[in-house]
Amino acid sequence: MRPLEECKIGIAGLGLMGGAIAVALRETCGIASENLFACDKDSETLKTAQNTGLISQGFEPERAGEMLCSCDVVFLCLNPSAIISFLKKWESSFKSGSIVTDIAGTKGSIAACAENIRKDIDFIPGHPMAGAEKGGFENSRLCNFSGKNYILTPLSHNKPENIEFLKKLIYRMGFGRITEVTPAEHDRKIAFTSQLCHLIAAALIDCESDTAITRFGGGSFEDLTRIAMLNAPMWTEIFIENRDALLDRIEQFETSLDELKLLINSVKAEELEKKLESVRDRRIQMSS
Amino acid sequence: MRPLEECKIGIAGLGLMGGAIAVALRETCGIASENLFACDKDSETLKTAQNTGLISQGFEPERAGEMLCSCDVVFLCLNPSAIISFLKKWESSFKSGSIVTDIAGTKGSIAACAENIRKDIDFIPGHPMAGAEKGGFENSRLCNFSGKNYILTPLSHNKPENIEFLKKLIYRMGFGRITEVTPAEHDRKIAFTSQLCHLIAAALIDCESDTAITRFGGGSFEDLTRIAMLNAPMWTEIFIENRDALLDRIEQFETSLDELKLLINSVKAEELEKKLESVRDRRIQMSS
Repeated sequence: MRPLEECKIGIAGLGLMGGAIAVALRETCGIASENLFACDKDSETLKTAQNTGLISQGFEPERAGEMLCSCDVVFLCLNPSAIISFLKKWESSFKSGSIVTDIAGTKGSIAACAENIRKDIDFIPGHPMAGAEKGGFENSRLCNFSGKNYILTPLSHNKPENIEFLKKLIYRMGFGRITEVTPAEHDRKIAFTSQLCHLIAAALIDCESDTAITRFGGGSFEDLTRIAMLNAPMWTEIFIENRDALLDRIEQFETSLDELKLLINSVKAEELEKKLESVRDRRIQMSS
Repeated sequence: MRPLEECKIGIAGLGLMGGAIAVALRETCGIASENLFACDKDSETLKTAQNTGLISQGFEPERAGEMLCSCDVVFLCLNPSAIISFLKKWESSFKSGSIVTDIAGTKGSIAACAENIRKDIDFIPGHPMAGAEKGGFENSRLCNFSGKNYILTPLSHNKPENIEFLKKLIYRMGFGRITEVTPAEHDRKIAFTSQLCHLIAAALIDCESDTAITRFGGGSFEDLTRIAMLNAPMWTEIFIENRDALLDRIEQFETSLDELKLLINSVKAEELEKKLESVRDRRIQMSS
């Protein structure tokens, strides 16, 4: 791979995360705008990105191939199913030797798909753990990458030097920690830290119809439900795609909640306090 | 009631909230330290508060009566059961005509107790909705009152001018909104916005033993579980004290979660997306 400064980088999908990656590449990594390209179905977004000097050229979806054939690095910043369709449709257009990565919140089916594409494209699946509750390109600057987690699920045939190249780029974008795991392990862990949390937030809002309830908020309700302002099509895909791992996690959570409920219902104060102490201790350990 | 500047104010319990109220009275309301008093079982805390000019005098628990007899306004900043014990024990010591309020997260039994105390003490139950995940006097400055909610559950015999006096004082401490409801209504609402949220956070931590899980965190897990670092004795009391309202809320939440789980399990993408859209819309309405 040529030096980063000389790489041409393409972003497929200038939504919240695609936009945030473009901003980080330009402003944090110092990539020249002449080396940055994007394709998106929204021509206004492409115009804005070009007029503000974020990218040098925008491509409408049907012209994605023209972008891909010249790019050394490509970020696929689409919904999970769209990433797979995009890979299949444009497989022949990627530049030989290019590094391709994605941002999807589930990795199993994308990794399986990537195992079967052209061997001269190095697809390294990834997941930047840095969203924002408001979606869309216009909110890209709400994504703060500084110090955040990034998960990579490298495939057995990925070239070590390409993984290293991508990791350096990720750190240069501001991320603080990269964890490498298998796609299956990613999906099990993320089912808990991300999907279950979003589902709980959704259930909390679903079970309360009083929109003036925020008069009684002291921070915890707001913290637990901020992510309920979710991108419904994307999360529908993610929940269903990763449903096996997610359903396991929901059941584990329900078991714990039921146990706490039982202690409360049966007024077992001593056991409840002991349980809450252990929760507190574990959460403190998790912080470090 | 005499002008605020001339009032002597006593704080029973210099923990996180008692300390934060003392700081707000001194620094935001400009109450002179010579007019501020506190009692607490921790003599070190009292010394620190006195030496730093936060209060003029500290009283050990058995000397609380000496403080109460001279105070025009008293804040009871103890755990719910301790507030009731304190009221019963020291009822005869309060100054005639004084305004007394508390900070407990459940109001039913405290309001019931306050209905039966001396009629020349005006007890106005309250609940400042501004905690912090770390407890204790030493973390008092982590409580930020600015713009936060405060709930009052006035009793039928409270004097209107005393309620107005207390409300002015609360706004001067920095709170942004005061809502007046019955104790029962408070307990139903808070069971949802506060207690259920804390219980969910506890259940989330309880069902995950991997303390390195934070490598996979992207903000939502952190947001949902920050409050799991809870004060176990206090929350045990609150959960059990308000168990009827809380158990109702848990069941409503479980019903919503089960409904979402069923849609995921049966791969009903269209219905799931519709449900998530309605959740998103409702959460946005709640923000305004």
